[in-house]
Amino acid sequence: MKLGLIGLGKMGMNLGLNMLDHGHELVAFDINQNAVKEIAEKGAKGAGSYQELINSLETPRVVWLMIPAGHLIDDVISEISPLLGEGDIVIDAGNSNYKDSLRRYNQLKEKGIYFIDAGTSGGVSGARNGACYMIGGDQKAFSLVEPLFKDTAVENGYHFTNEPAGGHYLKMVHNGIEYGMMASIAEGFEVLEKSHFNFDYEQVARVWNHGSVIRSWLMELTQNAFSKDPKLEKIRGVMNSSGEGKWTVEEALELEVPTPLIYLSLMMRYRSQEDDTFTGKVVAALRNEFGGHEVVKK
Amino acid sequence: MKLGLIGLGKMGMNLGLNMLDHGHELVAFDINQNAVKEIAEKGAKGAGSYQELINSLETPRVVWLMIPAGHLIDDVISEISPLLGEGDIVIDAGNSNYKDSLRRYNQLKEKGIYFIDAGTSGGVSGARNGACYMIGGDQKAFSLVEPLFKDTAVENGYHFTNEPAGGHYLKMVHNGIEYGMMASIAEGFEVLEKSHFNFDYEQVARVWNHGSVIRSWLMELTQNAFSKDPKLEKIRGVMNSSGEGKWTVEEALELEVPTPLIYLSLMMRYRSQEDDTFTGKVVAALRNEFGGHEVVKK
Repeated sequence: MKLGLIGLGKMGMNLGLNMLDHGHELVAFDINQNAVKEIAEKGAKGAGSYQELINSLETPRVVWLMIPAGHLIDDVISEISPLLGEGDIVIDAGNSNYKDSLRRYNQLKEKGIYFIDAGTSGGVSGARNGACYMIGGDQKAFSLVEPLFKDTAVENGYHFTNEPAGGHYLKMVHNGIEYGMMASIAEGFEVLEKSHFNFDYEQVARVWNHGSVIRSWLMELTQNAFSKDPKLEKIRGVMNSSGEGKWTVEEALELEVPTPLIYLSLMMRYRSQEDDTFTGKVVAALRNEFGGHEVVKK
Repeated sequence: MKLGLIGLGKMGMNLGLNMLDHGHELVAFDINQNAVKEIAEKGAKGAGSYQELINSLETPRVVWLMIPAGHLIDDVISEISPLLGEGDIVIDAGNSNYKDSLRRYNQLKEKGIYFIDAGTSGGVSGARNGACYMIGGDQKAFSLVEPLFKDTAVENGYHFTNEPAGGHYLKMVHNGIEYGMMASIAEGFEVLEKSHFNFDYEQVARVWNHGSVIRSWLMELTQNAFSKDPKLEKIRGVMNSSGEGKWTVEEALELEVPTPLIYLSLMMRYRSQEDDTFTGKVVAALRNEFGGHEVVKK
């Protein structure tokens, strides 16, 4: 089918190529016109503006956004929504906060425009070769664009929740689970590293990927990482994050759901971003105050 | 090759059948002689006593123990070791504590008997159709028995650490990671359950198993569980455990390695075993003492 794709970063570019592979007719726009040229060489129609992109589509127009979460989505929606009409469909397949998606759904609904929220997992290689989609919105709109999801997902790799914001909600929780799984795997390897054994971590991850209870894609990535750097000596253990773990914890607080592991995985990420901590200084100072225990001087 | 198998519980029976499938010559013993009869009908030679089992083997004798961890292993070793001689091999493929395995390794080494510790993962179906082994001990003994591991494991599903107790150490940490991964997955579903959305958990787990970052065998088991009981209404959330998560935490304490997620996953299991807590009573009583806050009466 024909669609407009806005956003040709790593995810958008690969997804666009994936769509072209499956015979979809793509009109693509990005602020970076070099990216537009690149995908135009692969068979897409390049657009120089939102106006040009929208004009190239037929009703009901389908516009797929693959841009960073946050105000950028609102900016683009406010630019394109006056150009769209009743029955047109906007898909946000980025990592938006589900509350924003709910707001945008209602905002566009007032104009008769459908809004579909889709959480996309599987990373860049997933976008290129087969992604995993968690999808929210209205059934009617979803039915129209289902081929796009079906064709660019792995087999069985999409689920329509039939509720506005349901897709981004699932993606948020997916990432919360991901934080906890990653930290659990990592803590295990830290125990191995501090033990008196001399384990070959690549081999350990390899055997854990073959028949064990903890076999998983994350363990496969662990195996890959150790195959390139057996003790990960080339990197520091600084764990950044991009929001969805935090949103899961915020949601858990709002719902008053105990999620101690997901919460702690987020806190340990924050801890890893500090070289030293004020907490540590306060505790050291207190031990010195009451017991005369030595402090480590700066 | 020819070997003696002691222990025909769920794991031992299935592993024995797996060995028979691969043409190994099995002499089997269990205190439960019905189990011995059962496997004898499938092609094993049944033994009525340890003596009979050992006498049926040829040097170097190989004895595979598949019995519960703890004193039972010591009991069996003290019964069979006088019957064994230099160069014979005892394999403990159960869930023993690695410190016990190190002790047993040294104890048997004094008599010239090799001790191999093997952590077995993959559950009952793994034992039957292809397990995952983490293996410790001496290279010389391992080389002799490697065909047993190779044949009964999934492809690529065994790793020899070349250190005494290395196998059971890896299995311990494997289970610690497993606790954390399971709790992370479960917390995510608890957020979904408390949210205002009406998700179909089987479908959620299904889509997360196809192309997502958190795809894993545990998520496949989650999908299975929800397919049978969509809201898990038939069970209570009591999380028992059999020791290895606790050992991982004890080891982390000994090594002073921060493992907050694995630790908390264990604590939350303990919490789940209580209907009410004394901690809860103390906090409720204190809130009442200082602020007159209402308590929930029994």
